[in-house]
Amino acid sequence: MSTAVVGKGLEGIVAANSGICFIDGEAGVLSYRGIDIHELAENSTFEETTYLLWNGRLPNRQALAEFGRQLAQARELDARIVDRLRNIPETAAPMEVLRTSVSALSYYDADEKDNSHQANVRKAYRLTAQIAMLVAIYDRIRKGREIVPPDKSLTHAGNFLWMLKGEKPSETATRTLDTALILHADHELNASTFAARVIAATLSDIHSAIVGAIGALKGPLHGGANEGVMRLLLAIDKAGADPVEYVKQMLEAKQKISGFGHRVYKTEDPRATHLRRMSEKLCKDAGQPKWFEMSRAIELYINREKKLNANVDFYSASTYTTLGIDIDLFTPVFAASRIAGWAAHVIEQLDDNRLIRPRAEYIGPAYPTPWVPLDKRA
Amino acid sequence: MSTAVVGKGLEGIVAANSGICFIDGEAGVLSYRGIDIHELAENSTFEETTYLLWNGRLPNRQALAEFGRQLAQARELDARIVDRLRNIPETAAPMEVLRTSVSALSYYDADEKDNSHQANVRKAYRLTAQIAMLVAIYDRIRKGREIVPPDKSLTHAGNFLWMLKGEKPSETATRTLDTALILHADHELNASTFAARVIAATLSDIHSAIVGAIGALKGPLHGGANEGVMRLLLAIDKAGADPVEYVKQMLEAKQKISGFGHRVYKTEDPRATHLRRMSEKLCKDAGQPKWFEMSRAIELYINREKKLNANVDFYSASTYTTLGIDIDLFTPVFAASRIAGWAAHVIEQLDDNRLIRPRAEYIGPAYPTPWVPLDKRA
Repeated sequence: MSTAVVGKGLEGIVAANSGICFIDGEAGVLSYRGIDIHELAENSTFEETTYLLWNGRLPNRQALAEFGRQLAQARELDARIVDRLRNIPETAAPMEVLRTSVSALSYYDADEKDNSHQANVRKAYRLTAQIAMLVAIYDRIRKGREIVPPDKSLTHAGNFLWMLKGEKPSETATRTLDTALILHADHELNASTFAARVIAATLSDIHSAIVGAIGALKGPLHGGANEGVMRLLLAIDKAGADPVEYVKQMLEAKQKISGFGHRVYKTEDPRATHLRRMSEKLCKDAGQPKWFEMSRAIELYINREKKLNANVDFYSASTYTTLGIDIDLFTPVFAASRIAGWAAHVIEQLDDNRLIRPRAEYIGPAYPTPWVPLDKRA
Repeated sequence: MSTAVVGKGLEGIVAANSGICFIDGEAGVLSYRGIDIHELAENSTFEETTYLLWNGRLPNRQALAEFGRQLAQARELDARIVDRLRNIPETAAPMEVLRTSVSALSYYDADEKDNSHQANVRKAYRLTAQIAMLVAIYDRIRKGREIVPPDKSLTHAGNFLWMLKGEKPSETATRTLDTALILHADHELNASTFAARVIAATLSDIHSAIVGAIGALKGPLHGGANEGVMRLLLAIDKAGADPVEYVKQMLEAKQKISGFGHRVYKTEDPRATHLRRMSEKLCKDAGQPKWFEMSRAIELYINREKKLNANVDFYSASTYTTLGIDIDLFTPVFAASRIAGWAAHVIEQLDDNRLIRPRAEYIGPAYPTPWVPLDKRA
């Protein structure tokens, strides 16, 4: 068996050629199709960024308008999908519901059996539009509120807030969420995107790949981390504790603090820069500076004590809370953004496919261990 | 960025240490926990094999009886899960339905939020028992037949055939399926198992991991290949063609023949040996030798012309057809077996976890490519 032995977790191993996302972890650089994330966060929209991820270049005015129109047109859910969101036990987490509902979307997708590039682009529009809708609709249903029909005149971010809240969002709220969606849209071969590519590489379908990605994003070492940050802030607030003292005690008890450190970045996560700024402004404007102030105090302490930097999850917690998004929707909102990157990666994988099938280093009982008849076993 | 550049598809790259499955592709060896697959195929049962995969050793009489009892006890589905199998568009493939239903199982699993080793073992019993049930129940529903309640006195294989057909299966049928389930139960880091480990490694839950694995298995480069084999046999039969001539023309037209070759084996796939033998006996006993005879003629031709060996999928097609299993249930039946290995791998991953997060080799537009205002774009 001619295998290269490498560390667990495939750390530093190249598993694909990809033209989508360039990261320089030493320099703190993140870029989509070569364009720096800072430029996109400041100037772009989620629609434009998604076009960029899927097409490899920025759209001109006409292409951008057409893209936005297509994405808005895809805000249609089969009534039977909405029915499937009812009568779900209230113990079910929104990520379980999203995973199940996205899987069921394929029942009603006319392109399900077509794995061509063009069919996958059509399915990517629908998945992008509909994941956000499923999150909002399920939240309305579980709260016993009426479902808000989509507004096709709004942007992706604006429509999500509209369907979630049932009132037209402020420009600041829409722009903040839009920027957060840009920042979360792709991140090279993170675990959920890699899971999606492994699944797609069997020539399975895009729904299967995205369902697997949602399952991976659910984990607290991945998308689930932003929930962990907010639960910490709430626990500190409830205890009336000093945030630094609280976190210090957690570290002494060997507990992990969510939202710090990153497998790839050795500097500050460039996404955290924008989320910090937005969190500060939003919390102050909303007259709730405490979430930002607590976060900032914890960040400075962890920087100093553990030499760890805040990552994308850390300030998204206070940002989303101030936008009025429930904690257990943080990871679903992450999915409503990352679908842009997942779709780009699945389509790229299928355009030049090879089955992804590594090997294991065997550490079990020696071969051959004999099969022993039942009555001769200890 | 300090990354090792390797080939696409992670070929020959070790992605995990594992004590579950040892394969020597050069020598044609497959073993579970060190025990050769030939010994297991000849002497073991699916229950015993699953115990072996999960516990690392063969059970004694008492442990085996207890294991079988636990697995049979888990043959209980919440009525709301069965309701979710109704009113599905008939265009939906059973693998889509299985992916969606297994995802929904987590709504009703009391251990959903418990990711401990013991809770995952409990969930593994339920998933193993219930995946087979979901496949059988959905097939009854789509055919407008009454659902057959599980029989807890039967083995896993026997109960599946009972719930599928509504009549007690023959000993030969049960033993044939049981052996097929043993042969399909694990195969190291195949794409679906690897997808399951990538998902579990974010500390997500076992349902998410298995749902991702089902999505990967659905692909024609993985579990879906056995369907491809049977569709070929049916096409040849319908055309009244000579199988060798038919396949020869396919090769001339650069078409791929499903069921041949394997990323890992350079010799005959050791599982094919047993499936060939079972296919021959079963087809002859059923008075339908043609499926075996066509398969054998194609195998000998492809051996000679392409130097490719039959793999696990090739003779499972004629075997399952002779057992009266519909073509689009072949991959779901594969899932009803491979769940044993998936569960073993997820639990092993979580017992000594590290996030699986490789890197990509960037081949896109150079960084930094500037963001250009909308009206300045071509």
